[in-house]
Amino acid sequence: MHHPAAPAPLMAFAGSPIDRADHIRTDDAALAELMNWRARVLVMDGLIPGIDDVGGLVWSSLADVAPDAELVFLGLMDGKAHFVPVPAEGAGGPAYAMPAAWQVMQLLSPPDLAIYGGARSLADWHARHRFCARCGSTTKLVKGGWQRHCEPCGADHFPRTDPVTIMLVEHTSEEFGDRLLLGRQPRFPPKMYSALAGFVEPGETIEEAVAREVHEEAGVRVRDVRYIASQPWPFPSQLMIGCTSVADDPELTIDTTELEDARWFTRAELEEARAAGEHGTDLLYFPRPFAIAHHLVAWWLDR
Amino acid sequence: MHHPAAPAPLMAFAGSPIDRADHIRTDDAALAELMNWRARVLVMDGLIPGIDDVGGLVWSSLADVAPDAELVFLGLMDGKAHFVPVPAEGAGGPAYAMPAAWQVMQLLSPPDLAIYGGARSLADWHARHRFCARCGSTTKLVKGGWQRHCEPCGADHFPRTDPVTIMLVEHTSEEFGDRLLLGRQPRFPPKMYSALAGFVEPGETIEEAVAREVHEEAGVRVRDVRYIASQPWPFPSQLMIGCTSVADDPELTIDTTELEDARWFTRAELEEARAAGEHGTDLLYFPRPFAIAHHLVAWWLDR
Repeated sequence: MHHPAAPAPLMAFAGSPIDRADHIRTDDAALAELMNWRARVLVMDGLIPGIDDVGGLVWSSLADVAPDAELVFLGLMDGKAHFVPVPAEGAGGPAYAMPAAWQVMQLLSPPDLAIYGGARSLADWHARHRFCARCGSTTKLVKGGWQRHCEPCGADHFPRTDPVTIMLVEHTSEEFGDRLLLGRQPRFPPKMYSALAGFVEPGETIEEAVAREVHEEAGVRVRDVRYIASQPWPFPSQLMIGCTSVADDPELTIDTTELEDARWFTRAELEEARAAGEHGTDLLYFPRPFAIAHHLVAWWLDR
Repeated sequence: MHHPAAPAPLMAFAGSPIDRADHIRTDDAALAELMNWRARVLVMDGLIPGIDDVGGLVWSSLADVAPDAELVFLGLMDGKAHFVPVPAEGAGGPAYAMPAAWQVMQLLSPPDLAIYGGARSLADWHARHRFCARCGSTTKLVKGGWQRHCEPCGADHFPRTDPVTIMLVEHTSEEFGDRLLLGRQPRFPPKMYSALAGFVEPGETIEEAVAREVHEEAGVRVRDVRYIASQPWPFPSQLMIGCTSVADDPELTIDTTELEDARWFTRAELEEARAAGEHGTDLLYFPRPFAIAHHLVAWWLDR
């Protein structure tokens, strides 16, 4: 469905118009009552959604779903319950390996992209977590798919969201003025550079994770880490936490097991690459608008 | 070990002096070489650490560990590799149910509390994830404990960190001036109120999660969500993301399945509770210094 009235969200995958209605999840009777002929089920081929001619998701009814299908309750919209079916197989991998995922980002309207992102993360998690990590038994989807329960050992398991820091690093010198540090992974298309990023690990703050990642990947020490914006990223289920930081010493020691290259880009080089749009300049493709890196660099250029 | 020279971190569980040395994790030969007589192993009784007379963690050597023990590589400190053993049983629950955990927070020096927090999250995760969630087989600890691998199905599993938003809600009126919304769960000790909080779910930004949680728990709509600070919280492994927000309409509709009560506190009431220290006032216990809620409310009072 297309939602032309919804405002365009700043970030791809943000701004879902669905009301998560979390009180329904824990109310078996209410949930059962909503599973009626009016309920809508997202049409998916595995983890790839059906898309109509105007960039809308395609929905069917419970009548079209196998009786033993596992369904996740996404929430309420237009007074109707919305569900996503759990596919036979999950994916779990990053988006770069999935051309179909990139196509979905091109085609879907922003609100439907947000609905799809949340639904995909949940469906993928269930497909890859049918067994109990504590005892190995099969588990059961409960609470509308916001939990899996293991009857033999009693363990409960919850859909996962992994916090990832993604950061600008700024250095100012008399010779170059303000510059930003961007890096490229070997898998990137030619000329593509983006913000460094890495998972937040147990036992560290967001600010500590940013400083650690920049030092690990580029050998640079940063200070003054500041949060800018966040984005949900459904490949498979990450919370991208966008930050900025400042480096006093620009000397790079690149960890080539992580990055193919990292370099400092001047404001002029970044402005030019942004203006050049999807073809980029000879030097650089500006990060794509789907990615929070695009918004972070644009924020830095425009502030 | 006590680290008197380390600066006191703002947040409990932040500021670990261990270098995570992540390049070692993926280098089997380097890791094997570090597992020598100099390596140090955290002494733990299940998930509770040994503590010496000066608030330091107690470390032993690899000679004291069973040959088949699973060990997680925490990183390097003083040129030595540091490990935590995986206990037979995990815990997985919140801290309020664990008096021993609260005692640890009272006794440990800040740097050792940070080391313990990260180690506890990792050890607890491994103890509760010995089986493959994808196929039910037993998995093997690999990469120094930063991964578990399932040989039968090929799946890899990674230690988990759950992002949780915790938020101040501010309302300003002519009658009361600035007030903050705090809530209490039924399990809280009498007079204890704290900041509202909830897990970030798949498909939402930090800002969307804050707005959703406040509306779900207290019926209040907020705007101008801003990030303030973060804290790792090892019960079992959360990233607390502290924010502030503004409400235009102070009317409350409390979700009594989540909260026993929520109410607006005036600046004077909060100042008085803070000054009263650990005994609180007749109205309120100020949140404890271990919790990020303490720092958020203090930030709001002092800004």
